[in-house]
Amino acid sequence: MREVAVIGIGQVKIGELWEQSLRGLAGDASLLAMQDAGLAHVDSVFVGNMMSSSANHQQHLGAYLADWIGMRHSDALRFEAACSSGAAAFRSGVMAIASGQLESALVLGVEKMTDSPGSEITFSLATAADADWELDQGLSFVALNALVMQRYMHEYGWKKDDFASFSINAHANAVHNPYARFHEPITLKDYQRAGMVADPINLLDASPIGDGAAAAVLVPLENLGKKPARPTIKVIASTAATDTISVHDREKPTWLKAVEISSKQAYQQAGLQPTDIQVFELHDAFSIMAALSLEASGFAQPGKGPQLALDGQITPKGKIPIATRGGLKARGHPVGATGMYQIVEVVQQLRVECGETQVENVRVGMVQNIGGSGSNIITHILQRL
Amino acid sequence: MREVAVIGIGQVKIGELWEQSLRGLAGDASLLAMQDAGLAHVDSVFVGNMMSSSANHQQHLGAYLADWIGMRHSDALRFEAACSSGAAAFRSGVMAIASGQLESALVLGVEKMTDSPGSEITFSLATAADADWELDQGLSFVALNALVMQRYMHEYGWKKDDFASFSINAHANAVHNPYARFHEPITLKDYQRAGMVADPINLLDASPIGDGAAAAVLVPLENLGKKPARPTIKVIASTAATDTISVHDREKPTWLKAVEISSKQAYQQAGLQPTDIQVFELHDAFSIMAALSLEASGFAQPGKGPQLALDGQITPKGKIPIATRGGLKARGHPVGATGMYQIVEVVQQLRVECGETQVENVRVGMVQNIGGSGSNIITHILQRL
Repeated sequence: MREVAVIGIGQVKIGELWEQSLRGLAGDASLLAMQDAGLAHVDSVFVGNMMSSSANHQQHLGAYLADWIGMRHSDALRFEAACSSGAAAFRSGVMAIASGQLESALVLGVEKMTDSPGSEITFSLATAADADWELDQGLSFVALNALVMQRYMHEYGWKKDDFASFSINAHANAVHNPYARFHEPITLKDYQRAGMVADPINLLDASPIGDGAAAAVLVPLENLGKKPARPTIKVIASTAATDTISVHDREKPTWLKAVEISSKQAYQQAGLQPTDIQVFELHDAFSIMAALSLEASGFAQPGKGPQLALDGQITPKGKIPIATRGGLKARGHPVGATGMYQIVEVVQQLRVECGETQVENVRVGMVQNIGGSGSNIITHILQRL
Repeated sequence: MREVAVIGIGQVKIGELWEQSLRGLAGDASLLAMQDAGLAHVDSVFVGNMMSSSANHQQHLGAYLADWIGMRHSDALRFEAACSSGAAAFRSGVMAIASGQLESALVLGVEKMTDSPGSEITFSLATAADADWELDQGLSFVALNALVMQRYMHEYGWKKDDFASFSINAHANAVHNPYARFHEPITLKDYQRAGMVADPINLLDASPIGDGAAAAVLVPLENLGKKPARPTIKVIASTAATDTISVHDREKPTWLKAVEISSKQAYQQAGLQPTDIQVFELHDAFSIMAALSLEASGFAQPGKGPQLALDGQITPKGKIPIATRGGLKARGHPVGATGMYQIVEVVQQLRVECGETQVENVRVGMVQNIGGSGSNIITHILQRL
């Protein structure tokens, strides 16, 4: 099995980008990543995307985007695993390079969501849940997460305000990320005044959708020269685990079993412990998901996730910095692209390019992308050599 | 790079299966494949599917189906490359096993199309073409192929009847395949009387859609015991190439450049010539595509594809047998599942399980799945050891 390195990254600012097309966004991020990698050609184009079928009436994004960015005749595919589509493409790219089948891969996450009516997007997002057992009962994604958060508060005795620090940290960090959707810091008062979406999830617990694209270039580590221009970033773990598609089928709805499996496998692959992870870009689609991810990944005991946030341990200067570029909450959540934004951001941390939110002396970072309500978890650990 | 073997196959009969759900179909084919492989558990579930978003309002099929078939917590993903989604999943499974990341993969193609109105399916199929440059001009998939066929007939002087042998062979073979959608042989007269769909493509030039699922189990060759119960089927080539998404962007619309690239790479990987291929399951979505695939894969000179059919060389007793189980034309074309039916059928040939349409003394078979109008080509060569 060949070792794999990330040699280029690119991203576009997330927003409601009326003036940009799906291929425009994808092309911009891709060409930035290839320029950053110093490559004019790649063997393959791996695209993570969730909802172009409904939102853009365009499928077959592999061939479609390979053609657009000038990589005609390359190997190209689309990967879909709901909100973990970006990491799914990245993991497949890692395996393709590791297998020896390909010598370079452009991995791209893209989503163009805001051209569709909001009701259609809410419906499309819900197709990541079980159509028969969840959708047909009228559950949306935010409603599913609200049920989990209510249960969690009931079980462990947390109050609503105890979750505010997750959003405050995310928004504070996004201020310094030019690619983030939001650049406004928020206070506890803002959080308390935010409109309720699905009790107890309010507007400042929920990540915003958006249009966006982010990309990375992968090559075999053995193909790099002895003195590369940039710090070498190596993929030291790549794992994935699923859980029941329906939340109600789980033994304990407040424990992300697949996060536990995927994280443990990742630590094992990398030969590391949770305490070795210096930055963790997790999937804070809702503040409850940030708490649950910290617990199941081994950074907090069950039921103790919010304490880490309250103690300031999730900020760039804390024990386990998360959402250092704004996270899903404030950088934004263009669903199929999110996993690739997370990868790009950890590479930026490892390259020491994060300015005000740079984690000090960082050499090892973890990235975790979640599809569905905890039903597909893809974890990567990256290391600067 | 580890070598990869196919140790189990499963499929369901294609049809308009009102009484079956998407997961029912997928589950049946998967469990048949696992039973055939003698495995009770697999590491991963790779799903090829094109249109569950629009046709079934269900995405996230990796986690959804892994859960359904009892492989909860496994690694699971969905792959989409239009009508080549099945082979895309298979190729990704091959690379995953080859990389050393996984020890077993259930690869599954599934499509449940007939619950939706035909107009919606026609529209969904067309999302494999370019939404801006083809769909918006009112082109459907059959219309695109009709333009190519007209041009081909004009360039090379073929008459409409010259294409009949492709459909006659496919239907004759499907009679003996219990999993095929159609079991009626057809004559030249039937072909001549068939209703026109988009001139010159008539009903007997076009493959039928359908509901279906087919699956295979992959493991590293090195994990097989010394005396396996079944003949060992090894994957000796796996390649993919794309072309322009729009047909009008090609230098020569009647030449499948990506087929040429993908096939040549496959021969090179396997160390073989076209003359070594003893059975070829190609992508005969339309009879013109069968002719073009034979040419670009090196079995006929440009413009001479129909001659092979007229000379009887594409039948199970001919030089290059195609559609030996009915092909897309008569076995049926449940789009995202088709690539896996093709794989299953070549494995059946190599295991000498094809009865009346068995190719004699066969040890090497090629499989080629096409997405879009020749815009994504995935080729595999399998060999019985």
